[in-house]
Amino acid sequence: MINAQEELEDLFLKGNQDYLANISVDNVIFGYHDKELKVLLLRNPNFGSWMLPGGYIKKTEDVEKAATRVAHQRTGLDHLFLQQFKVFSTPGRNRDPHITPEVLSQLTGLKIDENHWMFQPIVSIGFYTLTEFSKAKINGSFFAEVAQWWDINTLPPLLFDHTQIILEALKALRLHIYHYPVGYELLPEKFTLPEIRALYETVLGTKIDDRNFTRKLLSLGIIKNTNELKNVAGHRPPYLYTFNKEVYSMALKDGVSIF
Amino acid sequence: MINAQEELEDLFLKGNQDYLANISVDNVIFGYHDKELKVLLLRNPNFGSWMLPGGYIKKTEDVEKAATRVAHQRTGLDHLFLQQFKVFSTPGRNRDPHITPEVLSQLTGLKIDENHWMFQPIVSIGFYTLTEFSKAKINGSFFAEVAQWWDINTLPPLLFDHTQIILEALKALRLHIYHYPVGYELLPEKFTLPEIRALYETVLGTKIDDRNFTRKLLSLGIIKNTNELKNVAGHRPPYLYTFNKEVYSMALKDGVSIF
Repeated sequence: MINAQEELEDLFLKGNQDYLANISVDNVIFGYHDKELKVLLLRNPNFGSWMLPGGYIKKTEDVEKAATRVAHQRTGLDHLFLQQFKVFSTPGRNRDPHITPEVLSQLTGLKIDENHWMFQPIVSIGFYTLTEFSKAKINGSFFAEVAQWWDINTLPPLLFDHTQIILEALKALRLHIYHYPVGYELLPEKFTLPEIRALYETVLGTKIDDRNFTRKLLSLGIIKNTNELKNVAGHRPPYLYTFNKEVYSMALKDGVSIF
Repeated sequence: MINAQEELEDLFLKGNQDYLANISVDNVIFGYHDKELKVLLLRNPNFGSWMLPGGYIKKTEDVEKAATRVAHQRTGLDHLFLQQFKVFSTPGRNRDPHITPEVLSQLTGLKIDENHWMFQPIVSIGFYTLTEFSKAKINGSFFAEVAQWWDINTLPPLLFDHTQIILEALKALRLHIYHYPVGYELLPEKFTLPEIRALYETVLGTKIDDRNFTRKLLSLGIIKNTNELKNVAGHRPPYLYTFNKEVYSMALKDGVSIF
């Protein structure tokens, strides 16, 4: 937990003054490591269910900055790949029988009633973030102090519409990697071809045609052979590859067809 | 112009009571007709520049409903294809030297000062809509009574960040049509293969490989031959095709690879 007191005061006391009303960000932080794709969830025992990391938007910042702040506070990492994907706005979406004025008053030590701005309708801007989960130092928030990685195939019950938000984020990520490279934040600086293929197969949740995939990444110039061999036991050690940062960045800006 | 008085009162008098604060929708309404792609813009002579159709979000509706309402009010059409694509939130984005409390007071006959909710920061949810422009009966709003179709290649100077919103909408539409069918709202019920190819080439702004494109649409089952011939002069009249609505709807839901 970082800066609990600061978060508390920002949120409940100065919220309607410093932050935009009726709007928040939720950040689906995906963590990849060795063929596993996970999502970072938080929990407050008072609320019963798990929830996504999220936050409000300062009047002096854009939504990307708010989502970046959330990702940094929860993982300790900077320069994460972050993508806006969908807005969630069904009326009543941010009401839950466990989150009452009484519960919030008890939790904060402040007097909070039905008219508090947190009980107004809130439209949430959905972002997803990609990280390597072994690199992250995860933190809960004042609002939900337990933080845990969950495999995307075995999610627990979630608050509000957060299950839907995660499913939509996964759909957007899968569409995204057809047109833009991913991996720079998720693989070691030098990696083998089976390692990058495993990353794509894990994200897509499906097998891919190895030869076409490798050929395309090489012919686009997104990855290149370092001509170094990986130091592994066995008689045919694999070559190590690396991203060509310049081509990678351009592809991220303009889009490509990976498949 | 429809319901000017109602729009006026809704917007300025009951705005902060019925609508969400700090948030709006902008709708990039694309109109296609016979190899031309246009965008619907509005203008108020007091503001100097053209602007996108947009509106505020009622507390009782979601952002899709608000964007649908905007599209209906400005085109008279229902059941349009509508897609959320990006959120615009740079601080200060909704300030313009031509839109002052004095100008708005004069325009509305109401007393409007710097503290009016319209001068607060506003995050805008960008939508795009597809229509056949010859079918639309376009209307301005109370706020900007002149409505006009503009070719996407020759846009006039636009208010706020509206040029950026249109460019991002076009980018999103071009990505979209790689994975989802479009055309149902844009072509006549029966059309020739050159007609559907012209639609895709106009939207993409580039030539496409005719044989592969046609073969893919047919093999996916999205279009089918009606075995009727188009009644045109010449010795080889072309076949008429039609969308298979069931396959089309499924592809729209699950995504496909058109190219």
